[in-house]
Amino acid sequence: MTGSGARDVDQRDRRGLRVLSMDECVARLARTPMGRVAFVSAGESVILPVNHGVDGSCVVFRTTEGSKMDVAVDTGNVAYEVDGYDASTETGWSVVVKGTAELVYDDAETSRFDALGLRSWADPERPGQWVRIRPEEISGRELVPG
Amino acid sequence: MTGSGARDVDQRDRRGLRVLSMDECVARLARTPMGRVAFVSAGESVILPVNHGVDGSCVVFRTTEGSKMDVAVDTGNVAYEVDGYDASTETGWSVVVKGTAELVYDDAETSRFDALGLRSWADPERPGQWVRIRPEEISGRELVPG
Repeated sequence: MTGSGARDVDQRDRRGLRVLSMDECVARLARTPMGRVAFVSAGESVILPVNHGVDGSCVVFRTTEGSKMDVAVDTGNVAYEVDGYDASTETGWSVVVKGTAELVYDDAETSRFDALGLRSWADPERPGQWVRIRPEEISGRELVPG
Repeated sequence: MTGSGARDVDQRDRRGLRVLSMDECVARLARTPMGRVAFVSAGESVILPVNHGVDGSCVVFRTTEGSKMDVAVDTGNVAYEVDGYDASTETGWSVVVKGTAELVYDDAETSRFDALGLRSWADPERPGQWVRIRPEEISGRELVPG
């Protein structure tokens, strides 16, 4: 796993956004309940909101069985994003995880994920399958007051 | 443009989420300052936060010149998402616009977009190019209290 986050708090990217350190990225991922997974299905970009948890260095969430997400798991490559925005100060931040998605069936693992107590966007009566994203790259940016 | 939003306020999708009507989708898109554009670049899913405005039936935002977004404009097909989540009640909603992206150069049009007064995530000293997404489909879902 590589991170494009930097330790220098004043580092800016080419857009002028502050670059978040890896520690900041991981902390914001852990404390934000909701994010969006983006993947390609039948040649089209798909973006789905989910509630996620963090298990080790991985992002986990539940998806409805038979959903488009199955396609993403077949192709593997996904992007996951969490962010925050304060309209009053016009400041915001975003953390993006790039990685591979896989369905998790192992009982010991899914029991551990269940214990995270996530409220799923999937139907509670058909809670579906657990998906794990193994990160290959984590990066974050912050829009500071102008 | 087609909408999978429905007029029946109690309609649920296969995940058990409430289906937002087209009017609700458009209203939430208009009152939410920030969203995420997802597209494919070099075979990988990319997801970028931006501050958007609404111009007629289209979503508009600025992107840094020479960014990955240029690729999306070449391929055209993008997804744009806005959402909201209340951790205290564990309720949330999401609106997704599927459509085609294009760069806008026309002075009369970009002046109109400039007048929206958006705070851009792009560098203010290199504010970049205006992008317009022409929607082909708008859909929205709401996670109601469980």
